[in-house]
Formats: sequence, C-alpha cells, structure tokens
Amino acid sequence: MKKLVIAYSGGLDTSYCAVSLSKAGYEVYAISVNTGGFTEEEINNIESNAYKMGVSTYKNIDAVTSYYNKVIKYLIFGNVLKNNTYPLSVSAERIIQVIEIVEYAKSINAKYIAHGSTGAGNDQVRFDMIFQTLAPEIEIITPIRDNKLSRQEEIDYLKANGIDMSWEKAKYSVNKGLWGTSVGGEETLTSEKPLPDSAYPSQLKHAEPEKVTLTFLKGELVAVNGVENNPEVNIEVLNSLASAYAIGRDIHVGDTIVGIKGRVGFEAAAALIIIKAHHLLEKHTLTKWQLQHKEYLASFYGMHLHEGQYLDPVMRNIEAFLESSQATVSGDVKVTLKPYHFSLDGISSNHDLMNAKFGSYGEENKGWTADEAKGFIKILGNQNKIYHQVNSEL
Amino acid sequence: MKKLVIAYSGGLDTSYCAVSLSKAGYEVYAISVNTGGFTEEEINNIESNAYKMGVSTYKNIDAVTSYYNKVIKYLIFGNVLKNNTYPLSVSAERIIQVIEIVEYAKSINAKYIAHGSTGAGNDQVRFDMIFQTLAPEIEIITPIRDNKLSRQEEIDYLKANGIDMSWEKAKYSVNKGLWGTSVGGEETLTSEKPLPDSAYPSQLKHAEPEKVTLTFLKGELVAVNGVENNPEVNIEVLNSLASAYAIGRDIHVGDTIVGIKGRVGFEAAAALIIIKAHHLLEKHTLTKWQLQHKEYLASFYGMHLHEGQYLDPVMRNIEAFLESSQATVSGDVKVTLKPYHFSLDGISSNHDLMNAKFGSYGEENKGWTADEAKGFIKILGNQNKIYHQVNSEL
Amino acid sequence: MKKLVIAYSGGLDTSYCAVSLSKAGYEVYAISVNTGGFTEEEINNIESNAYKMGVSTYKNIDAVTSYYNKVIKYLIFGNVLKNNTYPLSVSAERIIQVIEIVEYAKSINAKYIAHGSTGAGNDQVRFDMIFQTLAPEIEIITPIRDNKLSRQEEIDYLKANGIDMSWEKAKYSVNKGLWGTSVGGEETLTSEKPLPDSAYPSQLKHAEPEKVTLTFLKGELVAVNGVENNPEVNIEVLNSLASAYAIGRDIHVGDTIVGIKGRVGFEAAAALIIIKAHHLLEKHTLTKWQLQHKEYLASFYGMHLHEGQYLDPVMRNIEAFLESSQATVSGDVKVTLKPYHFSLDGISSNHDLMNAKFGSYGEENKGWTADEAKGFIKILGNQNKIYHQVNSEL
Amino acid sequence: MKKLVIAYSGGLDTSYCAVSLSKAGYEVYAISVNTGGFTEEEINNIESNAYKMGVSTYKNIDAVTSYYNKVIKYLIFGNVLKNNTYPLSVSAERIIQVIEIVEYAKSINAKYIAHGSTGAGNDQVRFDMIFQTLAPEIEIITPIRDNKLSRQEEIDYLKANGIDMSWEKAKYSVNKGLWGTSVGGEETLTSEKPLPDSAYPSQLKHAEPEKVTLTFLKGELVAVNGVENNPEVNIEVLNSLASAYAIGRDIHVGDTIVGIKGRVGFEAAAALIIIKAHHLLEKHTLTKWQLQHKEYLASFYGMHLHEGQYLDPVMRNIEAFLESSQATVSGDVKVTLKPYHFSLDGISSNHDLMNAKFGSYGEENKGWTADEAKGFIKILGNQNKIYHQVNSEL
Repeated sequence: MKKLVIAYSGGLDTSYCAVSLSKAGYEVYAISVNTGGFTEEEINNIESNAYKMGVSTYKNIDAVTSYYNKVIKYLIFGNVLKNNTYPLSVSAERIIQVIEIVEYAKSINAKYIAHGSTGAGNDQVRFDMIFQTLAPEIEIITPIRDNKLSRQEEIDYLKANGIDMSWEKAKYSVNKGLWGTSVGGEETLTSEKPLPDSAYPSQLKHAEPEKVTLTFLKGELVAVNGVENNPEVNIEVLNSLASAYAIGRDIHVGDTIVGIKGRVGFEAAAALIIIKAHHLLEKHTLTKWQLQHKEYLASFYGMHLHEGQYLDPVMRNIEAFLESSQATVSGDVKVTLKPYHFSLDGISSNHDLMNAKFGSYGEENKGWTADEAKGFIKILGNQNKIYHQVNSEL
Repeated sequence: MKKLVIAYSGGLDTSYCAVSLSKAGYEVYAISVNTGGFTEEEINNIESNAYKMGVSTYKNIDAVTSYYNKVIKYLIFGNVLKNNTYPLSVSAERIIQVIEIVEYAKSINAKYIAHGSTGAGNDQVRFDMIFQTLAPEIEIITPIRDNKLSRQEEIDYLKANGIDMSWEKAKYSVNKGLWGTSVGGEETLTSEKPLPDSAYPSQLKHAEPEKVTLTFLKGELVAVNGVENNPEVNIEVLNSLASAYAIGRDIHVGDTIVGIKGRVGFEAAAALIIIKAHHLLEKHTLTKWQLQHKEYLASFYGMHLHEGQYLDPVMRNIEAFLESSQATVSGDVKVTLKPYHFSLDGISSNHDLMNAKFGSYGEENKGWTADEAKGFIKILGNQNKIYHQVNSEL
Repeated sequence: MKKLVIAYSGGLDTSYCAVSLSKAGYEVYAISVNTGGFTEEEINNIESNAYKMGVSTYKNIDAVTSYYNKVIKYLIFGNVLKNNTYPLSVSAERIIQVIEIVEYAKSINAKYIAHGSTGAGNDQVRFDMIFQTLAPEIEIITPIRDNKLSRQEEIDYLKANGIDMSWEKAKYSVNKGLWGTSVGGEETLTSEKPLPDSAYPSQLKHAEPEKVTLTFLKGELVAVNGVENNPEVNIEVLNSLASAYAIGRDIHVGDTIVGIKGRVGFEAAAALIIIKAHHLLEKHTLTKWQLQHKEYLASFYGMHLHEGQYLDPVMRNIEAFLESSQATVSGDVKVTLKPYHFSLDGISSNHDLMNAKFGSYGEENKGWTADEAKGFIKILGNQNKIYHQVNSEL
Repeated sequence: MKKLVIAYSGGLDTSYCAVSLSKAGYEVYAISVNTGGFTEEEINNIESNAYKMGVSTYKNIDAVTSYYNKVIKYLIFGNVLKNNTYPLSVSAERIIQVIEIVEYAKSINAKYIAHGSTGAGNDQVRFDMIFQTLAPEIEIITPIRDNKLSRQEEIDYLKANGIDMSWEKAKYSVNKGLWGTSVGGEETLTSEKPLPDSAYPSQLKHAEPEKVTLTFLKGELVAVNGVENNPEVNIEVLNSLASAYAIGRDIHVGDTIVGIKGRVGFEAAAALIIIKAHHLLEKHTLTKWQLQHKEYLASFYGMHLHEGQYLDPVMRNIEAFLESSQATVSGDVKVTLKPYHFSLDGISSNHDLMNAKFGSYGEENKGWTADEAKGFIKILGNQNKIYHQVNSEL
C-alpha cells in the first residue's frame, strides 16, 4: 500500500486531506508535532479525531526540546527580532515541525508526504523546500493548494463522508507555540487598525509590578528566580509569569517569501523579555565589535530562517559565530513586570566589562592622564583632519 | 588681545573656565548653543551670570533647526537606536554644539577655543576632534581636563574671585535637548539598579489612553494630529503630549569612545515614538532589501556619530543613501499613548506595498496559481537541494 | 493586428521566433539593442536578415551611452567584480537591453513582447522580471522556452519556411559588449579545464610594455593618455590598447539565479584595468570607512544586478551612496600594459590623503609626539585590556 | 636584577636598545621570533651579534607553525587580501611575534619588555596593545620612540660602546616572512611611482609555464603536486616554485592605525596563489550566502588584525564562522605558473556544487520545466512589480 505521511493539525484543511487521501487509497500516517502549543488534552483530542478521518496511524512528536536546541537557542544568542519587532514565533516552529515530519517519513520509508498549506503563503515554501532538500525521493502531495477548495466545499466533503464536526471559523486565527502565539484576523488584513485587546490570548490579571531574576549561562536561560531548569522549561515558566501582565503584544509587518507584505499580531511575553534581558547582559559583557557583528549576522539569520532557508549551510556557520560569542554571556538580569510592559532593572555578572576597577564613565578617571587622552584624540582624528585639509574646498 | 571662544553652559566647570581664562588675560566670548534644552528664561539667566564671570561677550546660538537638519533627520531616516535602545540624545546634540562653536570662533578670528570637559569621557573627544578638523589653526584650551580640579577647588576659586553662587550638585545630572534628556546618577555608576521614577524629568499625568496621528512626508514628520509645522516643532509638540504619559524612559548601556562601558538613563518620548512610527511606515513602503541595508548602514551611522566621527565623509555617503531611501516613506501613522508606554495602531499611505490589489497574505490568492507557486519553490530551493545531495555524508 | 516586439539578435533562436510569430499572425517589430557589441556592418546584416524572417519592422537601438550611465558608471564607482573576478559583462548589458526593449514596446503600444531565452538560465529571469515590472499589461511570449526545440528542429522549420542560412554552431558561444566579452564552450561545462588561448577574442600582438595614463574625474574615466572623451568612448579606446596584450582573460564561477553553479570564460581588458585603477585612486583619496562600506554595498549591488533585480529601489539608494562617495575620486592613474597582465604604477591627485605634509608612513613623524602615540595606544587598547583582565580564566 | 625581554631582530634599532638597556643595568633577554623569514645561518649570526651587545641571554623562538595555526589559516579561510590586494604579510606576522615575546616574558617573570619601534607607525601599536593586554603588569620600554634618535646617533653610540659593525642603510627595507616579503623604499614614500623590478626579492628564472596542483582539505593546503606535508611547509614549497616566475608582486596602499595613508611594495607568490586557488574552490563548493557573508566578515577580520586588534574576542567568533564554513572546501585546484602572473585552470572536488547531475548552466535543463521557471520568475518578481505599480509616478 502507498505509505503517506501527513503533517496533521486536526484543523479543517488537514482533516480534509486525511479523509480524501485515505479514500484515495493511501495508508495515511497523521503526524502532529508539538512545539509547545498543545496540551496533553488537545493531543488526545487530535488523536481521537484523526482516527475518525480514516488514518491508519496517528502520532504526536514532542519536539519542544529539539525546537529549543535547533532554533530558539540561536534566536536568543542573536537577539533576533524580525524588523526589530517579531520573535519569529511561527516561522521558527514551522521549520522544526517540517524537519520532524520529514525525518519520520524517512524512518518509515514513506513514499508520499502531504501538507495542508494553500498556495498563498509562506508555509508551503517551508514545507516543500525542506521536504525536497532532505528527502528528494519522497513525492509531495498538497490537496488544498492543488484544488483551491473553499471552506464550505471542504466541510461539505467531510459531511458527505460522515464527518460531521463543528468547523466554524474562529474570528481570529491563532497559532500557539513555545516562542509565542500569532493572532490573525480582520484587522490584520489591512494596514490601519490594531487588533482589539480581546483578540490576544492573555488578559491582564495583575496590576502590581513584580520583579523577576533571569539567570543566563553562556547565553542560555538556566534559571528563573533562582530555580534552575532546562531552558525550554524556563521559557514556559517565565511566560506564565509575564502573561498575567498581558506583556508582549505587538503587530508584525513584514515581507513574505512570496514577495507580498503581510501583517500579523502576536503575543510573545517570554520571547521578548528573554531577548531584551539577554541583549542587556551582552551590552555589559561583549566588546563593541562583537555586538556590531552579532547584530548584522543575526538579522540575516532571522530573515533567512523566516524564509525557510534553515538548511542553507551558512546558517550553521552563523550559529558557530553566535555560539562562540556567548562564552562570557553569563549572569543575572533583573526585570520588572508591569501591566502591558516591562523594564530591565540591571544586571550582575562576573564578566561585566563595566567594572569600576577600570574607571567609571563620567567620573574622574584613574586609568589615563589628560595628556594621554589628548594624544589619543589627536591621532584618532588624524584621517578626518587630513581629509578636510586636503579637500578644504569641498 | 587674545580672543578666546568658550563653549559655555553656565555650570560650575564652564564658569570656572570663564573666570580663570578672563583673569589670565583672554578676551573671552562665552557661547551657549541651544539644541532644544533651554527656555528663554534660562538663556537670560545664563547670560547675566556669564557677564559676572568676566566674559567680554556672551551669545546664545539657536541651533535647533540646524540640529534637526544636520543630524536628527538622518537619525529618523535610519531609525537609529544605539544598541537598539538609545536615540543618541546627548551624542547627537553635542556634535552640533561643537560645530556651531567652531564656526563662530572662525567667524570672529578667535585664536583660542576652550571647553570644560574632563579627560574621562566622550565629550572631550567630540570637542577636540571637530575643533581640530574644522579649525586646525585654533588652539584648544581645557582647564578642567588639564588641572584635574575637584568641584570644591573650583567653588573655592570662584568664591575667592567674588563669585558666590549656589553650586550644590544635583542628585542627578540631567542634560536636556530636543532629542531627549539624559539622566545620570548614583544608580547608573554601577550595573545593577534602575533609576528611581522620580529621577526622570516627566511624571505620569494622564491615565486615559490618547490617540495621536503622525504624518510623514519623505521620512520627515510634517504634522501631528493634522497640524502641520516644521519637523523640529512637531518633535516638541509630540514630546509634550507623550511626556504626560511618562513614556520613553530607559537606560542605555554602551561603549564609550575611550573604551570603557558606560550607563546612562534617558527619557526621550518623542524620539522613541517617532522612530518606531517611522520604522513601521517603512515596513509598509520599502522593499525587503531597502529595510535590510538601511539597518546595517544606520547602525554604523549611529555608532560613528556617537564616537564623534560626524565629519568622516562616509557619513555624507550614508546620508545620501538614507535620503534616497525616503522617496516613498509618506503617510499617516496612528499611535496610542498609554501610561509608561505606547502602541502603534497602523498606517495609511499611498505607497503602502501591502495592497489588497496584489493579494492579501494568508488569504486565497489571485496573483499566482498553485503550479506557479510550486515552480517558484522548486527553483528557489535548488542550491540547498544540490548542496545536501552532494554532501549527503555531512 | 497584434503588435509584438521581439528582442532580436539575428541568431538561430530569435530568427526562429521571428518567423514563427510572423506566421502566427503577429505584426513583428524586431529590435536589437547595441550595448557595444555590434559594428555597423553587423547591424546592417542583422537588419537585412530580419526582413527575410518576415518582420514588419526592424530597428537597432544604440544604448551604449545609456548602458554606461545607468549601469557601468556604478560598477566602476563600486569596483564591482562578482566573486572578486567577473565584471558582470553579460548580466549588466542584458539589463539595459531588456529595459530598452520594454520601453520601445510601450512607446508603440505593443500588446506582446517576445524573447528567445530558454528555460534553463539567467536571461529569462532578467527578461521576464523587468518586462513584468515595467509593463505588466504586456503579454510575454517565449517560443524557445515553451517548445523546447532542438537546434535541428529550428533549422528544419526555417528551411521549410524558405530561410536557408548557415546556422552551424560555433565551437564557442561568444557575447560581446562594451564591458567585456563572454566565452562559453565545452571546457566551461565542467569544472576542471581552462579555455584554450585561441577561444578568447584577442590574441597577443605586442610584447613591449606600454604605459597608459587614465584620468578620472569624480570616479569617471574622462581621459586616456590625456585625450578627453566621453567615458563610454574612453572604455573602447582603452580596450583597443589593452587587447593587443591579451589582457583581461579569466573564468567566472558563480551562482545563477536559478540556484545552480555556472562557469563562463570572459575577456574584459578595459573593465579590469579601469576597476583596478579606479580602486587604487580610491585607496589614496577615500577614508577607511568609505572604502569599507563601499565594498560591502557594491558587492551586494553586483549580486543583485546579476540576478536581474536592477529595478529594486534599493539599487537607487546604493547608487546614491556610491555617487556621493566619488566627490574626491579625481586624478591620474598610471598603468603599465604587459603581455597577459598589467600593473598599476601609481597615482597623482589633488585629493591624495597620502600627503607628506601630514607625515610619511614609516618615516620620522612630525605630526605627533611619542607621548601622544603612547596615549593613543593606551586608550585604544582599553576595551580589550579590560576584557582580558575580567575574563582572565578564558 | 631587573629582568627585561627585548624583541630583537639584530638591526640597528634593536642593537642600540640592547646595548643601552644592558648598560642601564637591565638583565637583557634578547628574543627573536622566526615567522618564516630567517635561515638558520641568519639566526646564528643574530645570536653571536646579540652577545656582543651585552645581552645576558639570546633565544630564537620558532613560531612558523604557531603563525600558521593562529593566523594564516584564517587568512586563507577568509581569502583575506587587504583592500583587495595585500595578504597582510607583515601585520600578520607581527602579531604572532608580539604574542610569542610576551608569553616568553611572562614565563621568565620579566618585569620589563622592550621593543625598537618608533612613534610613527603601526608596529608600536601592535607591540604596546598586545603587551598591555596580555601582561598589564609588565612595563614597556621603548628607547627609539622615546629618544627620537637618528640613525647616525645610534651608530655613534654603538661605536662609542665598542660595537663597530657595518650599519649602512639598504636602499630598500625588506621584511621577509612565511606569508610574504614587504619592500619599502624611496618610491613607496610618494604615490606616483612603482618599485623597480630589481627591488623585489625574486627575479624571473623560468619562462616556460608550469602546472601545479594544490590539494585542500577543509580549506587547508595539505599537498602540493600530490606531495603531502604540513600546510606551513606546503606554503614554502609553493613559494619556491612560484618565485622562479617572479609572481606575486604588487604595491599595497592603505590606512595605517595612526590614521595616515601608507604605501608598501610586497612579493607574496604563495599567499596570492593559495588565496585565489582556495577562493575558486569555495566558489564551487559553498552556497551563495556562505560566499557573501564570508567576504564581509573576512574583510573586517583582515582590517582588525592589521590594526593590532587580534585579541578582540570578536576575532575568535569570526574564526569560528570561518572554520565552520570550510567543512566542504576540499579538492584539487590546478594552477598554471607563468612569467609574472598565474592562472587558475580549474578544480575537482567531491563537494563541487557545479554538478552535471543537477543540470548544466546554459544547456537544456532537465531539473525543471518551462512552466516551473515561469512560476519562479513571476513570484520572485512580486515585490518589485508591486513597488513599481504602487509608485508608478516615481
């Protein structure tokens, strides 16, 4: 029989695919990949539904740790915020989901692999490119993209095949994962309006500010408020704390892989706090040129990841740079959570280069004399002095 | 008589310089340069004090417009936030002050130019380098740096010379200008603590959110809430509105020109809102590669400006790039001011590339077919596919 | 009647297109664009053949000056050599040819535009993308790409239609233009072998070295050996001189737009000499950071141009940077032509920053004292000193 | 007794230092560091002279392997040519010499360290900064810089102290090392003239072209003409072969650390051939973005190294990137040596991405269809199409 693996979420599109591909004679393996968005209950629910769709096997792959190690870690090292705003919540997790799916497909010698993306967006690019790169021998099948079905046509088809579930479209399309939740809806289809507060997953629960201590070791978040745990767990812990303040909402506007502009809301409390805290620690512990070059490389890393180019070997080269840069990025960062925003209080680190031993900025300085400062300035200015004298007519 | 121009603020250091240089036989021209930090009353006060110090002439140069045109404009075009945080409030205005001083000195044929900086910080570098570059024939005199006087010694000297004013040191050293106010104090000398709320110049007055519309024309802020005015005036208008929400506070940690790390608080409501609003408008109106290269160049521009290298001709080249990039950055940005923070609601622009005419992201797309999308993805992935097949052992 | 413009070279592919499209009922306007590769005789020849193919109109557009002003000028400003080797001879001229064709098509209200590219390479991308961008209302017709015809099938078709010309395939496919000549053949299809000497268009005629003086004004080549002329003429003059030495041969290996690697020989004596001479003049007249940032932007400019993205507005922004950087790039460069290579002897320029007035490198220096040098070094080294002391365990 | 280590070359300046410091009561350890420039005979000669100068100990440190492993390797990985011309022959070796000296000084608990640089150039910066960073507790002594002695004064002093050697100044100052030989002289003090052929160390001996095969493994040169050896030995082998053709001469014009422009001739046959051959191999084996980012980082790496900033930790981060990028840079490169120049014939590599299996550029292509190509182009051009339609008035 024709073994087929489908990236399965349990939504209308992938349900349609599961049913129609089963009917078409494929032996369907429905695989969901948890990158932090599913509760156990949700997974059980997806599973029981999957079998109603006629799949031969359902499996949920827990990829939270792999997600952290392969992608999130480097997004933190690089303080990656796409267009200075968006922590790449969805793009980052999609990459990992696709890789997990294709590896599973190879492990069971599947000849076909299916996904439910349309022909309009980024996800099809991420799915197809990674599938084709890692498993050029597997054929890709995309019923939704190929048939351009409307929601109603899919619902009718399912009903005709005995699947009578409630598929009403939520007002906002929500995608939840470890590194943030995206929220799309009517307002994000045009440029002018914000999402209403109620569209965001978390609502304000606490008004009193609360202090949190984040402990980093070589760039990784190893403890929250002194409690050590794996970084991926710490992200969740911090997210619970900060969500009570409705922190981390914004709207991302950016370039899709297909060349049009897109707009999407997101809430990513932990991601934003961690990146800002980590960056502050770096400002204290890295040299000027480390900061400058990290910024340049990380900006590209984020863009290339977003565009599904995770498998370009240049990504491994950038990761090597970023990993190397974290040798001294260890210490505590104090953060204050407040309603809808947060502030960074300060850091303490054994690697802090702002060290009174070597002079305090703006204070009387024992590190050098006035004459030494004058010599420094004189020579530092040499080239521009010469330039302006030689070109005094400009 | 020996004509000397001094960059004069009326503070203890420059007062000491004014008196001692007058006593030493110089004809002292005390010049203050207003880059948005002085009220008329303050200027009158500085003037009357200056004459008590024995200066032969006092003059205040209004450089607000020149400041905007020579520097702030490009900081907005480039969305420049040093280390992703600091709008360069002080470094930017210092540059303009130094240029105005040296041009004045040349206009009156002064043979000497003095400033009150110590040998510890950035300002001496900005003063000396720009003086030496634009007027290599003028000798620079720096009594504070050279004599390493304590505050008490300066006060005693002034008192001995009949100047008995109150020079008590403020708890926080504050530097106010059009592009923001810096605040330094006990807490910023070490890495761990935030400034207390009370140290910031503006305190929360309004709790109810307020919507503001910013209108940009080719990257410049030409109107606030529909009221047109010069950009430098609009900055002040916006600042008044936003200060009532205590918006724009943060702490900058960064590399000084002399190689040590420094930390300084700042409040810059207008600067932060304008930069974020302008950037959002750019995300809608510029292409992906415009955004990418602007970011890279502007980051360097900010660093080089901060380090006093404004006269490097590469700065003019970057300005040419930035100016050229603003051709389509026109439209309205809606902002909501809230207590201690703000959010960007959306934009409207005739140049918006997120235009439903060409397809809406995530919706069914009429711009291309499923087959075209597949062809796109297939060829887009070519290189990585080849790489991974050729190097399948890696 | 259905007006159609075809980019016409007179080769087999475009002849096939001209005949078959005429037969299919189109009113065919055959347009060739001269970017420096055609003699008048060749153009007359193309014209008379064109009418044999049944076209209704033939026109040659002389685009040499436009080619220089729109592209070559900036390639020189940026010292652009793709992968440090290739002056982009073919990619650069293709862009201009496409733009000229589409502008002509719009001027006569053509409804169709045709080109003879296959589906394998870069040229189709340049044609289609620029056509679609500048004239989305014009339909593109590509018979060779669509029908995948073999040479023999095309020849047979032409013969059947009364066109009996000699179409034997040259051993090497040669593309000649103002900025260089590309040479492809059996050897360049694989990675291992060089082209034979005889495949290159110019052969060694002179053995005795010859000195040439190139005069630049704001980055443009305004005279060769003191004889002033338009830059595009000067390029041709220099090319004649240097071709007699068989200078400027190399093989370019690079990434095509379609993701595979390609290899092509080229001879571009004038381009290589001008770029190297211009770069030398810049080393003397620009500051360190001008050189650094020009290199970065120009490398991207070359890549983006090569990939047909000339119409991305970021290209205009980079051109603004480059143009701005050339203000002082004026002076003479002396070059010695030798068999198969050349050397740069030196420059003279009023803008030369290597000016003995400010000290000669390596000689005793009057610009600063030993103590000033020590002060400079001490402070310049501050950050790394602090880093290594703080992190002495690393 | 006061232990002092001096960086000793046996030239006039360091001889003067050795004698005068010995006389002044220091226990002088004269250390020369061989980075490929000394023969055994020369070392013996330096040693016997050193003792005549009164030093207590002389030692030559063989640093060729350390030079290769710490610096040259990365210059090759990065294809580093400063300003596209100069392989950094002198700057690179100076760094290693300084590090070896300071490590030796620390190993013997020296309290003082001396060098013979003047206050005019780059070398003092490299010496002082690295000494101060790695051994802030050791005092630096620089008699030549401090006393501004003329050659004649030094000679007279030595003669007065019984050292009567021939110190006549060579017409050209030559610095030889593993990665090239620099040549300075009258012509390089100004901008206009080339060095005469006779000033270069190698003269043309062979007229007949000769083919050489270079074998790289992960970016390192592991064999020349099939003979395996350590890379540092292979560099010497290749240099002997290529010097017979007088290959690798040029003049570097660049920015010194002290802000003035400098000009110096060099001959670096092996360095230039290896870098060009290595780069060619990379063009075949790396992806487009690996090539692009390597270029950017390596250009900075070269500049920062040149300026003595080898100890900035960003250099380790860039090295990590470069090392990571070399995983597939293995294979053979064929080079032809000719009088005064060389050409690259081609490469063979198991990692060659230009692989006929995936389609040959310019040939009929089996990797994708005409329709797929059209889809690719259509979507690739989306953003610019939208931009130009939205902004049709620009």
